[in-house]
Amino acid sequence: MYSFLNDYSEGAHPKVLKALIETNDEQSVGYGMDDYCQKAKAVIQERINNQNADVHFLVGGTQVNLTFISYVLKDYQAVIATDEGHIHVHEAGSIEGTGHKVLVAPHHFGKLTVENIEKIVKSHTDEHMVQPKMVYISQTTELGTYYTKDELEKIYAYTKKNGLYLFMDGARLGSALVQNDAPSLVDIAKNTDAFYIGGTKMGALFGEALVIVNPLLQSDFRYQMKQKGSILAKGRLLGVQFYTLLKNRLYEEIGEYENQLAISIRKAFEEKNFNVFCPSSTNQVFVDISKEALNEIEKEFMVTHIKEIKDNVIRIRIVTSWATSQEQVRKLVHLIHQL
Amino acid sequence: MYSFLNDYSEGAHPKVLKALIETNDEQSVGYGMDDYCQKAKAVIQERINNQNADVHFLVGGTQVNLTFISYVLKDYQAVIATDEGHIHVHEAGSIEGTGHKVLVAPHHFGKLTVENIEKIVKSHTDEHMVQPKMVYISQTTELGTYYTKDELEKIYAYTKKNGLYLFMDGARLGSALVQNDAPSLVDIAKNTDAFYIGGTKMGALFGEALVIVNPLLQSDFRYQMKQKGSILAKGRLLGVQFYTLLKNRLYEEIGEYENQLAISIRKAFEEKNFNVFCPSSTNQVFVDISKEALNEIEKEFMVTHIKEIKDNVIRIRIVTSWATSQEQVRKLVHLIHQL
Amino acid sequence: MYSFLNDYSEGAHPKVLKALIETNDEQSVGYGMDDYCQKAKAVIQERINNQNADVHFLVGGTQVNLTFISYVLKDYQAVIATDEGHIHVHEAGSIEGTGHKVLVAPHHFGKLTVENIEKIVKSHTDEHMVQPKMVYISQTTELGTYYTKDELEKIYAYTKKNGLYLFMDGARLGSALVQNDAPSLVDIAKNTDAFYIGGTKMGALFGEALVIVNPLLQSDFRYQMKQKGSILAKGRLLGVQFYTLLKNRLYEEIGEYENQLAISIRKAFEEKNFNVFCPSSTNQVFVDISKEALNEIEKEFMVTHIKEIKDNVIRIRIVTSWATSQEQVRKLVHLIHQL
Amino acid sequence: MYSFLNDYSEGAHPKVLKALIETNDEQSVGYGMDDYCQKAKAVIQERINNQNADVHFLVGGTQVNLTFISYVLKDYQAVIATDEGHIHVHEAGSIEGTGHKVLVAPHHFGKLTVENIEKIVKSHTDEHMVQPKMVYISQTTELGTYYTKDELEKIYAYTKKNGLYLFMDGARLGSALVQNDAPSLVDIAKNTDAFYIGGTKMGALFGEALVIVNPLLQSDFRYQMKQKGSILAKGRLLGVQFYTLLKNRLYEEIGEYENQLAISIRKAFEEKNFNVFCPSSTNQVFVDISKEALNEIEKEFMVTHIKEIKDNVIRIRIVTSWATSQEQVRKLVHLIHQL
Repeated sequence: MYSFLNDYSEGAHPKVLKALIETNDEQSVGYGMDDYCQKAKAVIQERINNQNADVHFLVGGTQVNLTFISYVLKDYQAVIATDEGHIHVHEAGSIEGTGHKVLVAPHHFGKLTVENIEKIVKSHTDEHMVQPKMVYISQTTELGTYYTKDELEKIYAYTKKNGLYLFMDGARLGSALVQNDAPSLVDIAKNTDAFYIGGTKMGALFGEALVIVNPLLQSDFRYQMKQKGSILAKGRLLGVQFYTLLKNRLYEEIGEYENQLAISIRKAFEEKNFNVFCPSSTNQVFVDISKEALNEIEKEFMVTHIKEIKDNVIRIRIVTSWATSQEQVRKLVHLIHQL
Repeated sequence: MYSFLNDYSEGAHPKVLKALIETNDEQSVGYGMDDYCQKAKAVIQERINNQNADVHFLVGGTQVNLTFISYVLKDYQAVIATDEGHIHVHEAGSIEGTGHKVLVAPHHFGKLTVENIEKIVKSHTDEHMVQPKMVYISQTTELGTYYTKDELEKIYAYTKKNGLYLFMDGARLGSALVQNDAPSLVDIAKNTDAFYIGGTKMGALFGEALVIVNPLLQSDFRYQMKQKGSILAKGRLLGVQFYTLLKNRLYEEIGEYENQLAISIRKAFEEKNFNVFCPSSTNQVFVDISKEALNEIEKEFMVTHIKEIKDNVIRIRIVTSWATSQEQVRKLVHLIHQL
Repeated sequence: MYSFLNDYSEGAHPKVLKALIETNDEQSVGYGMDDYCQKAKAVIQERINNQNADVHFLVGGTQVNLTFISYVLKDYQAVIATDEGHIHVHEAGSIEGTGHKVLVAPHHFGKLTVENIEKIVKSHTDEHMVQPKMVYISQTTELGTYYTKDELEKIYAYTKKNGLYLFMDGARLGSALVQNDAPSLVDIAKNTDAFYIGGTKMGALFGEALVIVNPLLQSDFRYQMKQKGSILAKGRLLGVQFYTLLKNRLYEEIGEYENQLAISIRKAFEEKNFNVFCPSSTNQVFVDISKEALNEIEKEFMVTHIKEIKDNVIRIRIVTSWATSQEQVRKLVHLIHQL
Repeated sequence: MYSFLNDYSEGAHPKVLKALIETNDEQSVGYGMDDYCQKAKAVIQERINNQNADVHFLVGGTQVNLTFISYVLKDYQAVIATDEGHIHVHEAGSIEGTGHKVLVAPHHFGKLTVENIEKIVKSHTDEHMVQPKMVYISQTTELGTYYTKDELEKIYAYTKKNGLYLFMDGARLGSALVQNDAPSLVDIAKNTDAFYIGGTKMGALFGEALVIVNPLLQSDFRYQMKQKGSILAKGRLLGVQFYTLLKNRLYEEIGEYENQLAISIRKAFEEKNFNVFCPSSTNQVFVDISKEALNEIEKEFMVTHIKEIKDNVIRIRIVTSWATSQEQVRKLVHLIHQL
């Protein structure tokens, strides 16, 4: 059974693994104060064209989200996300666990819109309610779509005008970066207060690189990290991996690779007139299929069941990654054509 | 300008005030360990016909909600409320401030239904999501309706079957208790794990009596109260007030009085074919009126603007209490008839 | 049995009670937005000679401490207190309950010293430890002593030089204000970032007036209050009481009255060569006596047992207040002389 | 410059690294639900001779401590540790960050004693104080000593008698396991409610194996992990490493190796009459030396400065690990002999 369950089923991309092996015996100071983290930070600063950005390396996405959001918000402040937002539905209340409400807006193809953000902002008028202070978006979104450069700029402009912070969860950023109309790393750094470059789902063994662009949100952040259990003892492991992913275009190559495979799968479903939900060109394919069709697929492949849409129709998710086998994709496409 | 803004605009009911004055010079031990708190507790145990119920006196409603809900829930557990629920929209994120998510269901005339609770329970399937563990309802509801005895029993039965706790916010409990088909204090004690008998909005200077019926939720609760700043030094003040309100039917008399005044106002609006929102027979009247009509009313009376329903239509709220002047109600009714 | 257990055994000072009775039937808006709170705020601003100070009225001391300290500190920041500090030992972990460590220094007659504060500050060097950010002192202290004007100025100067905030718990402030060498209200406002004027232990039914002097700590504080359950619905009750206590010298009269009674008790013990612990001229008397002597006292009076100092020697506490009977003090003094 | 700063300066033990490389391309389900985690859990259950123990794999020590302690304690409960306890001084307030006070006892050679625990328990008498509920010990301790089997049994017996939980931080457990009089894994499982087998400092790239022995502390723990950001996406990495470390005696071999090197260093200092602080036979050497001697050492080696003991005397720490070079130890010993 070949798994299309997600993009973290295997270990590390061969080049990342090689870098870890080669540096294994070196001595370095702990907690991210080593030279590899410095080098990775420098590469990121260069690629976003911002020498004043702060960069921190954490192990996982929930950890980044809870550590940074709780760092920024005062006790009574809240973060706005879509009703599909990862922090709202799939992190076991980690944000609330740090004391903050998640305010929820309906999604538009997985995305927040200025209109929906504004509705929330305008309905929070006094101290009997929480104070909306941050907007959380995911690139790519939880439904496999992505914000265009134009959409991002509009949301950022709105947040600046209204005293809000904009934070982008980039767990699958590589899949978005290589889209024509998506914001580049430089664009993102100009149009967010902070964002993270995901590693776990993009070829690293583990790790996310948090980039804090807004200088007002930088002081003493390592204290927050330590308190939330987010500083890795052998921090060097994170520096080595991100340096490898970002020093040249490996990160984007991975995004391109996984997107191409997903596109071919999506195309196969569309050719067979299946309903592709929130169609896009990223590495996550959502499609509504009958139980019979699902049974056929699951004879050879593992896919995620999202939910039952109606009688005998299941929404499933298929995810590709740097590790996905081209041959297995060909098999799957062949099978879809026969459904 | 006479205020119909709410039921806590004045001080204490004359009988309550008299009791406070008469006991003012007595010495008593602090923190609710005094004889008056004991007597008030005994009266409540008798009126709910349950000698094993625990009773604690706190100063305000938000304080009761946050102290008790955070006491019951483990870190990853959540409480279910309606989208109009006080803890969801009007307590500045106090529940999230203690670390817990509020899961939100659409309201049915201000009320939760078993069906809506179940939808939430069934959609929370594993440890990537919070664990629903408590249901929070208000009697009367935030929209002035109330749960009938039958509705309460059904919700309680569902919670017991599904390992949930049921907690009732009784900030305006007196207004519900005197309804024919509403649960009595005995019924409530049999069909909740805990509830509180509101004082602030029912004739006390301040204060709410939390009744914990479920013996599994009783141990060491005073520690939780102390930590959350919820133990009043001169706790005797709370005992004196609740003993006065509950030793005979003063509490219910207040409920009957305020309800009758509200009914006459509601009736006046209905006779003039205004849209009464979530009609009921409790002390809160919600009605949709034009800006012109509102202007007329606001020449003499203060009312709460809830929101603009559509162009030139505002939903307002009018609240009566033990202190509401019958003469002023007559004036208001007269004015409505002339709109 | 007459109680010397504490200064909150009775209700309100007659003048305070009278003011509450006289205003009981007035309508006012809720949550501290009423005219009485405005008047009380204006009186306080005048008495501290600072029109920019912010003033908020809360119900109790633990509530003030936890609401304000958690408002000021970022997640990883800590507050420094003595090992006898109320927030350290007697608030059931309320500060830790909001997420913050209390760093503990040995007390010097109940007081913090610059030297002890500095030891803590210097030993916290990096992000593996919490960051000390606030100093918490009590006036009078938990051991009945008080900071002189000179001591307060030195501590404040140190905090300003080192980027710390200074917060004064004034639960028993009136007992200190009337001491010759103690800081006046004006002095305190000049030498703290915030402090509170205690009401519960100084003649109010309940209530504490938090004065935030530092303008950087003022924005949106009411959100924090609401979230922590610290806004009283009938906020007017607090305004009425503090206006009565502070519009003329009632607050100081109460301090003088209770101090004189305590001094006569202390003097009696000293004349009989008992060991008075942390001697002072405030309303709390700590004295070490034998069990036999304690038995004699407890035939007529209730006093607090602090702890067993050594075999057959108990440290007790005797507290006087605005309500303490002069006749009972005479009886106690007489009894002490016969021990 | 060769580093003796700590036991996490290098990557993974060669055998651990090999196992990670060999399994890198395998597909597995995420979040610790894979076969390798199952195998590692089974090995641990077998080695502690307890099939009912629950085992969870987390990335780092602070993460384990904050996740588990906050899971066990109710809001008002506190954990007891020594004044050198890692959770007290070196985790940036992570336990307080989850809402719980750390109660501090003086250490006896780095260790808690029943007597010191009891002093804390007995001084917490009512709800105005926190409620001590858990005892936290480290094996080996922060000062390089270890609890003997007898000491552990006595502490555990005390905790059981007094309704407390006992939790052991085993970040450096391997260094203790191989001591003659130390408790074995079986002994530890019988004499704690939970403990963790440290990986980060014992040859893993990262990772700690939390073993929950007490069945009352097992339900729904994964929810707590998810909320605190403690579930690793590619959880398999942890299973592979712990299976490798524990399936045979690699874990103990590492402990023996590092201990022997530390013993030879300690012996050299003792032969030269330096004051070895808290002498032991584990992998951490604490010794007080003059600044001149320190200068000599630091020409070739990096060591940790703990603190200045008195004029011209510095306490330093030297740590050995699986990766420490025998040749470098010989050089250091030679240098010490020449001091």
